[in-house]
Amino acid sequence: MSEMKKEINAKEISPAVIKRLPRYYRYLGELVENEVVRISSKDLSERMKVTASQIRQDLNNFGGFGQQGYGYNVQYLYNEIGKILGLDRTNNIIIIGAGNLGQALANYNFEKRGFKTIGLFDANPRLVGINVRGIEIHDIGELEEFVKNNEVQLAALTLPKQHAHQMALELMSYGVKAFWNFAPIDLNLPDDVIVENVHLADSLMTLSYRIHSREEE
Amino acid sequence: MSEMKKEINAKEISPAVIKRLPRYYRYLGELVENEVVRISSKDLSERMKVTASQIRQDLNNFGGFGQQGYGYNVQYLYNEIGKILGLDRTNNIIIIGAGNLGQALANYNFEKRGFKTIGLFDANPRLVGINVRGIEIHDIGELEEFVKNNEVQLAALTLPKQHAHQMALELMSYGVKAFWNFAPIDLNLPDDVIVENVHLADSLMTLSYRIHSREEE
Repeated sequence: MSEMKKEINAKEISPAVIKRLPRYYRYLGELVENEVVRISSKDLSERMKVTASQIRQDLNNFGGFGQQGYGYNVQYLYNEIGKILGLDRTNNIIIIGAGNLGQALANYNFEKRGFKTIGLFDANPRLVGINVRGIEIHDIGELEEFVKNNEVQLAALTLPKQHAHQMALELMSYGVKAFWNFAPIDLNLPDDVIVENVHLADSLMTLSYRIHSREEE
Repeated sequence: MSEMKKEINAKEISPAVIKRLPRYYRYLGELVENEVVRISSKDLSERMKVTASQIRQDLNNFGGFGQQGYGYNVQYLYNEIGKILGLDRTNNIIIIGAGNLGQALANYNFEKRGFKTIGLFDANPRLVGINVRGIEIHDIGELEEFVKNNEVQLAALTLPKQHAHQMALELMSYGVKAFWNFAPIDLNLPDDVIVENVHLADSLMTLSYRIHSREEE
């Protein structure tokens, strides 16, 4: 991006702020749904359980959306944060592993979040050919051709852990450079590859710890 | 716990270390599976992409497991971390919402992680009575009686967001005090209630941001 460009440049925003954006976006989306036109940092603060000063600091990154005595224009702020997050574009996603979890993901409508599921893949012949919300489950053998004929920005890995790393390498060789990994392993991939992990078992162990330590209080 | 007690007391360990424990547990579990008996902090460091000094500091919290020139006893360390996490006990979990995601969770064997799924619940009569890995889907109307007749340490909420908060309050009134929340909202519950969120849409928005900002480089 040119340094002269006056638009908000996501690169200038600190990673800590970026990390909080999905949550702002989610809250603002609910306000939009409820037809709230404007909101003060104080009201938003009470809903989100974040200090008003934190909200002002965070949202100041996006220029002068907030006005003294008026507050924030909800729809405008929602749209601007959406643009920063890249949600005004559509990324295509494929899902590798069409078991319950893969089908659960396919059943979500993630298009509001900038992602469109264009295919599921599985090695199990009993699953191949089934449609999930209009999305076909393909045989894993068709993967290479499919990825080469379609733009695939993201692959969700919902397959057993022993196959996950090998599958990521295979997909990388076809040009896929971002993974949403649900297998309970850390994928060991080059730095320019994006990996976002959803480690359900780690989340459960954290719960176990918290339940266990509360009992000891 | 008595202050005189010589066993490791989870309360003395910093939250930052606790947060890293599930990952240590996962790596050590793989070493156990591969019949590795001992490992040096250097080797563990290379696998986990954490500095050896961080590993030594973290694991020193659990007493003298590591020995100069020997390294760590893998099975012992695995067991001890498991105890800290409370994985040597079993917590019962119920799943509210038996759609794809609820069924996907029921299909996981989380017993190695200290959790046993004892029931699924749904309002949809077409789902009621179905068995998932031997676990029955009950009518939601049976929830109160079920929770009162069984020890339920955790409820997973895999139901639409508009019902999630109300359901959490209902379950709290039956005595459930920990939630694994998959609905895309922040549950607003008292401080003594444990909530662990898995916000898939937030995770996707983070991916969107990362894909989008890489394209601009």
